[in-house]
Amino acid sequence: MTGNSILLAAVSVLSACQQSYFALHVGKARLKYKIMPPAVTGSPEFERIFRAQQSCVEFYPVFLITLWMAGWYFNQVFATCLGLVYIYPRHQYFWGYSEAANKRIPGIQLSLGILTLLTVLGALGIANSFLDEYLDLNIAKKLRRSI
Amino acid sequence: MTGNSILLAAVSVLSACQQSYFALHVGKARLKYKIMPPAVTGSPEFERIFRAQQSCVEFYPVFLITLWMAGWYFNQVFATCLGLVYIYPRHQYFWGYSEAANKRIPGIQLSLGILTLLTVLGALGIANSFLDEYLDLNIAKKLRRSI
Amino acid sequence: MTGNSILLAAVSVLSACQQSYFALHVGKARLKYKIMPPAVTGSPEFERIFRAQQSCVEFYPVFLITLWMAGWYFNQVFATCLGLVYIYPRHQYFWGYSEAANKRIPGIQLSLGILTLLTVLGALGIANSFLDEYLDLNIAKKLRRSI
Repeated sequence: MTGNSILLAAVSVLSACQQSYFALHVGKARLKYKIMPPAVTGSPEFERIFRAQQSCVEFYPVFLITLWMAGWYFNQVFATCLGLVYIYPRHQYFWGYSEAANKRIPGIQLSLGILTLLTVLGALGIANSFLDEYLDLNIAKKLRRSI
Repeated sequence: MTGNSILLAAVSVLSACQQSYFALHVGKARLKYKIMPPAVTGSPEFERIFRAQQSCVEFYPVFLITLWMAGWYFNQVFATCLGLVYIYPRHQYFWGYSEAANKRIPGIQLSLGILTLLTVLGALGIANSFLDEYLDLNIAKKLRRSI
Repeated sequence: MTGNSILLAAVSVLSACQQSYFALHVGKARLKYKIMPPAVTGSPEFERIFRAQQSCVEFYPVFLITLWMAGWYFNQVFATCLGLVYIYPRHQYFWGYSEAANKRIPGIQLSLGILTLLTVLGALGIANSFLDEYLDLNIAKKLRRSI
């Protein structure tokens, strides 16, 4: 298990670093725009950075669970590549949103696309394993054989 | 591992879809009530939908970890059923809260009840495995034998 | 797998209880300071408690993933101890922040230190397993031998 999850583990730790980096950047923005805690409003620049981080927080557990499910039940290498790609639009989203609300669009679209793909791959892999285990019917194997 | 987690995996992917659905609905509500990002206030209707989603986000990692722990250490089928049931009160909570603040109560009560149950089952399963592994004492087996 | 994750599982369930406890305390603070949902502003006391919980929510998935990765790929007992220690500064942070914004500092510093340590240990363990699996090079074993 720990052997066949190592790439997923690496991407997860990398994405955890990114999440912490975003959170620390919000802390720095607090000082820069003089927003004293617990306030989260008062400067549009700070509010954009704060909302960008909050949105990344919202999607982070969804990303992790779909990444691991796609990696465990579909294909580890493929899921890892998608996971690595996901980190980039999140970066793009965060910095785009920090500059202007409209610049968040390309990052969010790409990241939602990757999340959808991970979800679909995870669901396919789970469905295949389910049929294999409970109905003794392995569609992936049959497909490979018939080709 | 991946074999005996397949039901948990299926429920997790399903709940991830629900979380994404709530997030997308907040995006739609932004357009409907004309709340321009990064603002999250300005319309009571939007604020209710936004808070409903935020509350689901808060509890999502807690749900996932208690689901998997109960599934791994207590019983996969039982945890999966509770996980499936949990999706319904979250749905009820989200749509109830969207309509009126008071309508969030039944959903939140039921979902907290299921979370408590998952936590208790997870803790029991972990305690049993712990005693079994470190003190060579399997209470679950003894209980079954004594019946 | 479930056998060599039992301590991680126990810490995870414990931290999930702490998260739920914080969330319930925000609910109680709503009643005490008469902040009707969906509002989250209006009383500085409530805002501090709310922000304290939100910050714990932000870091919770990061904590869980680094805890499990450090436990799986570095050392379960060591990661578990760090995970147990992490619960205390979170407690300190939450209650400190509830009293005054400045009192959140010691708790957040300690908890970020532990998160950094878990991330570093996880990354080291993953790097070692990666070299071992893909390049057949086990640094940890060599280090032990050379001592």
